[in-house]
Amino acid sequence: MSPAYPADSVGLVQPFKLLIRQPLALDCGRTLPQHELMVETYGQLNAARSNAILICHALSGDHHVAGYHEGSKKPGWWDNCVGPGKPIDTDRFFVVALNNLGGCRGSTGPNTINPETGKPWGPDFPLVTARDWVRSQALLADELGIARWAAIIGGSLGGMQVMQWTIEFPERVRHACVIAAAPKISAQNIAFNEIARQAILSDPEFHGGHFYEQGVVPARGLKLARMLGHITYLSDEAMRAKFGRELKTAEPSYNFDVEFEVESYLRYQGQSFVDRFDANTYLIMTKALDYFDPAREYGNDLAAAFRRATAKFLVVAFSSDWRFSPQRSREIVKALVDAGRDVSYALIDSQLGHDDFLMPIPQYHRVLRGYLARVAQEIA
Amino acid sequence: MSPAYPADSVGLVQPFKLLIRQPLALDCGRTLPQHELMVETYGQLNAARSNAILICHALSGDHHVAGYHEGSKKPGWWDNCVGPGKPIDTDRFFVVALNNLGGCRGSTGPNTINPETGKPWGPDFPLVTARDWVRSQALLADELGIARWAAIIGGSLGGMQVMQWTIEFPERVRHACVIAAAPKISAQNIAFNEIARQAILSDPEFHGGHFYEQGVVPARGLKLARMLGHITYLSDEAMRAKFGRELKTAEPSYNFDVEFEVESYLRYQGQSFVDRFDANTYLIMTKALDYFDPAREYGNDLAAAFRRATAKFLVVAFSSDWRFSPQRSREIVKALVDAGRDVSYALIDSQLGHDDFLMPIPQYHRVLRGYLARVAQEIA
Repeated sequence: MSPAYPADSVGLVQPFKLLIRQPLALDCGRTLPQHELMVETYGQLNAARSNAILICHALSGDHHVAGYHEGSKKPGWWDNCVGPGKPIDTDRFFVVALNNLGGCRGSTGPNTINPETGKPWGPDFPLVTARDWVRSQALLADELGIARWAAIIGGSLGGMQVMQWTIEFPERVRHACVIAAAPKISAQNIAFNEIARQAILSDPEFHGGHFYEQGVVPARGLKLARMLGHITYLSDEAMRAKFGRELKTAEPSYNFDVEFEVESYLRYQGQSFVDRFDANTYLIMTKALDYFDPAREYGNDLAAAFRRATAKFLVVAFSSDWRFSPQRSREIVKALVDAGRDVSYALIDSQLGHDDFLMPIPQYHRVLRGYLARVAQEIA
Repeated sequence: MSPAYPADSVGLVQPFKLLIRQPLALDCGRTLPQHELMVETYGQLNAARSNAILICHALSGDHHVAGYHEGSKKPGWWDNCVGPGKPIDTDRFFVVALNNLGGCRGSTGPNTINPETGKPWGPDFPLVTARDWVRSQALLADELGIARWAAIIGGSLGGMQVMQWTIEFPERVRHACVIAAAPKISAQNIAFNEIARQAILSDPEFHGGHFYEQGVVPARGLKLARMLGHITYLSDEAMRAKFGRELKTAEPSYNFDVEFEVESYLRYQGQSFVDRFDANTYLIMTKALDYFDPAREYGNDLAAAFRRATAKFLVVAFSSDWRFSPQRSREIVKALVDAGRDVSYALIDSQLGHDDFLMPIPQYHRVLRGYLARVAQEIA
């Protein structure tokens, strides 16, 4: 007897590894002769192969978007949005999710074996870009027989991949849902990423990225990096509401133990990340964020870049997001309008900050549900 | 022949060390039998001893506020504001500046010798609070024969000491200038401080704070802490204006060398801090920030705390400051108004962020100059 999953869940899911045999020429100049991608799919591809939706993950995401893995009670990272009857409705769509190249959840990346050396890639793994991911995802689409996505959806760094898709493979994207993203990150964003990287790179247990062979992990550095990330994912107001200045003890302890609730939260988040994420992948992901700038090849004119696109766009921003603020989403919308593209924009009234793109905020889910219902009609 | 200093400079200055022989009972419960403070003064104390101004420093500040030390071309950290004819006019006022207890620039602190052990205090130095500093500064005032300050002035953590003075020793403060401060720091501020502390505490070369004996410094941790600080001192806009997303090379290098100008800036700021600051002091300073909350003993009612004060207040905030935003200054103003205190508030239109409190912004300097000119008339 199978365990009881919620009725609106895709239930038990089984990720699978797909070997991409085509060589992939990367932005850095190197070529991967072949690579593997960890993939999950939900729902059924229709006969016309027209109902496929690709979900692109953010910095620390992976292929496990919805449902449950054998033996685990924790659903995928966007389970609240993907499932039968949910905004990304698996009764209507065939949903594809993957762990990006360079990730650490099974796809070819720093913690997998480099066939040329028989050892983990480690720091020799190339610094991949959002465009490299999109090209890799296009090879995946070929493999799955999907000529054109009904929609590509992603939040944060995932939203950047969505934009890149519309510019790189315009004919292969019907609808693009760009959520809590930015046309390129700011100097302040780069600064946060740089500190996270320095925390990892300067950890003596990083061993120049060859820590696997040493049987250690750069836990201190990775923990600091994640703690820092968490500050930028939450709004000042959300932190106030969530933790205030509550002391864990009645009086200050006058030492460096955990004193404030927010310290406890950060240390916990940092530590649990160390247990599940790879430091080399973290470096790669932050660099991909820094490099992302699709306007660069178009004379720094984002509208010129978007003139290549033929997709229709949904752009979603969250009022409390200070990492990728609504202002940054409006820059995307403006460029799309200037390029004459079809774009809908939704500003969601929210509290949490950047993390809100993962939350089941009713207004947000209504927007997604409504948009995708129209997509479903269009492809029917 | 003495070197030529600018005409509006206090010129060559000589810090001196002052032994405070009175015991100091600290908030943590420990008592320092005596302690030393590094001090600088500018201008002349008048016969009535009524023209003294105390300047309280912020997190990484010290006693060297104005003028030049022998052999150095770098003036004090607030030289643009303190000197003959400057807003804090040394022709009119006797200005006193010190390195706070627990500092690392000569005052008794972790990097000085604990007389009981003959070794550096290191991590055994008590975690001092803003109130401890104020009490230490009051002993300094006794030593200098200053019964009442014409004004006490400070920015950021310095502004917090100013507030504490008005509550702790109301009769000893005529005017309080609270600049770019907050009535208490937010959970987000605590979170930034916690990450800075964790960076230092987890550096293997920290050696539990006993790094002096090991002949090393926790450079990696202190560097990370300072880099993080710098992000919060600058506004997003200032970073954009200052660095944009400029690459140091024509093309991305696809490695972890410095690529963006902002990375170069942060690494430089971090490294230069390591060369001049003490890690244990940094820990103490951030804890003092976290603990500061004068309303705590007054049922979390800041107005109740300020009802003790008799000083007149000038509160100054900067529009681009997101670390201690104008909203936080308005909380101070509101509490002062509720307490029936005399308060002037100036919101300075600024670009840089929190760092603006150190900048010679004309509007800012006009406000300070005008306010202090009235103070000078009052005491004449």
